[in-house]
Amino acid sequence: MSLLVVGSVAFDAIETPFGKTDKIVGGAATYISYCSSYFTKNVQLVGVVGEDFPTETIESFKSHGIDVEGLQIKKGEKSFFWSGKYHNDMNSRDTLVTELNVLADFDPIIPEKYKNADYVMLGNLAPKVQQTVLERMAKRPKLVVMDTMNFWMEIALDDLKTTLKMVDVLSINDEEARLLSGEYSLVKAAAKVLSMGPKFLIIKKGEHGALLFHQNEVFYAPALPLEEVFDPTGAGDTFAGGFIGYLAKTDDISFDNMKRAIIYGSAMASFCVEKFGTERLMGLTEAEINERVSQFKKLSHFEMI
Amino acid sequence: MSLLVVGSVAFDAIETPFGKTDKIVGGAATYISYCSSYFTKNVQLVGVVGEDFPTETIESFKSHGIDVEGLQIKKGEKSFFWSGKYHNDMNSRDTLVTELNVLADFDPIIPEKYKNADYVMLGNLAPKVQQTVLERMAKRPKLVVMDTMNFWMEIALDDLKTTLKMVDVLSINDEEARLLSGEYSLVKAAAKVLSMGPKFLIIKKGEHGALLFHQNEVFYAPALPLEEVFDPTGAGDTFAGGFIGYLAKTDDISFDNMKRAIIYGSAMASFCVEKFGTERLMGLTEAEINERVSQFKKLSHFEMI
Repeated sequence: MSLLVVGSVAFDAIETPFGKTDKIVGGAATYISYCSSYFTKNVQLVGVVGEDFPTETIESFKSHGIDVEGLQIKKGEKSFFWSGKYHNDMNSRDTLVTELNVLADFDPIIPEKYKNADYVMLGNLAPKVQQTVLERMAKRPKLVVMDTMNFWMEIALDDLKTTLKMVDVLSINDEEARLLSGEYSLVKAAAKVLSMGPKFLIIKKGEHGALLFHQNEVFYAPALPLEEVFDPTGAGDTFAGGFIGYLAKTDDISFDNMKRAIIYGSAMASFCVEKFGTERLMGLTEAEINERVSQFKKLSHFEMI
Repeated sequence: MSLLVVGSVAFDAIETPFGKTDKIVGGAATYISYCSSYFTKNVQLVGVVGEDFPTETIESFKSHGIDVEGLQIKKGEKSFFWSGKYHNDMNSRDTLVTELNVLADFDPIIPEKYKNADYVMLGNLAPKVQQTVLERMAKRPKLVVMDTMNFWMEIALDDLKTTLKMVDVLSINDEEARLLSGEYSLVKAAAKVLSMGPKFLIIKKGEHGALLFHQNEVFYAPALPLEEVFDPTGAGDTFAGGFIGYLAKTDDISFDNMKRAIIYGSAMASFCVEKFGTERLMGLTEAEINERVSQFKKLSHFEMI
């Protein structure tokens, strides 16, 4: 099925205890698109970059089967740039630089041929922009998944609440779930967030896995215990890309299929963190992905007697 | 099979955001014994209390089928007492009072009829005392499980290392695994700890579940997402009691059976935290326990297609 991906396409400069990068290509929509392209060949990208954005990356998107008609290139302007430094525990980071550049007044223009997309993934952006995307669709998509972050909860809560009413699945981390709900217990937090609009809530807990809540059901996906997390940048977006990519491929939005989608998302995220930036998301094979997924089954399954 | 439980039998005074208790009965061996008594009726308790310890609790042990011949009662002395206050997140606590009393010079005397126990659970105690218990057994038990804590890593590391060589399974939390190994990654930490003696390592992560490591295998048991953790005191000991109780009942120490044992331990711990102290461990039914275990299966299982 067709999958519309909206989000930042950008430059990152990353420092981890293992090393640092110059400006490399990053951004939510970059990770989501690359990742979901392993599941469906009908990925449509909406985003904005400056004239400084490398044509090789745009070619790389195309070679992954990603439609880039919706990627606006602003002449004479610069791409969004983020720079951050991870602490030794890799669970927290300091932002060193944020230059909005082209993202400051991003108008998400949706090409005609994208307007009937069945699946929509709204990467982290201003809630107003996410809302505009949905308003511009020709029909209500079958499933809308939305990512957001604490920043918008702090400065644009009303907009965020409006957008929340328009989506099916919200994907946030544990601290964001607590912030948005005002509840410490994730079970209570989930109940509150689900009353704000989304029918499904994913709470990402980094190395502790992810929870999927829906009505009175809950699913707990572990994270793969890794020897080393080399660079966590993009792990959450990669997770989202695997999640919605798998759903778009299978075109089944039952709770049972969402469990599988969470596992595929977790598997893809476990690749992402093994190298800097998007490097590990290049050239993965179906066999590698399936092997990784089977590790999750081995990791979490037990038989009762 | 017979199960020898050694550890503190004590008084606790607990304060949580939900309330506080007067002196109530606690201690590692108390939680372990009560919990494991739901799995095997051959629990043998070794510990020490003072004259102040309530006879009703000793009667309660007996009514749970726990053999108390090994519970020393010191005339004119006082029981071990611990008092602590949990922070709002329930993941950390301050110790307010520790009175060793009878535990200061605890000599773990093993009654003759306990000396051939098949399963041994060494609750958190000075490593030297744990070692003495094993030296006094008539034969090498089929399985020895040991709990310990950061305190002993800091003040008795050499003793601890000696004891580690004598046990089969070590159960510690994530911070303790990092402290003992000097490694932040739990995968690397597990490899180091397994090289110190134990063939199996359980890393408890509280609300994030537990990991079981053995050779190159790893199993991830989730924790049940709870609306409220009322009092976490004894959760780790209850977990251990469910783990070894299930193994003693089934007499199967394969990795697959240990996975099930971890799930039973997690299920029992999820009961424990619902009320203060040991209250929730009184009068559980087999049906309640099995229902809780089936929730874990529902929580973590997915089918691939």
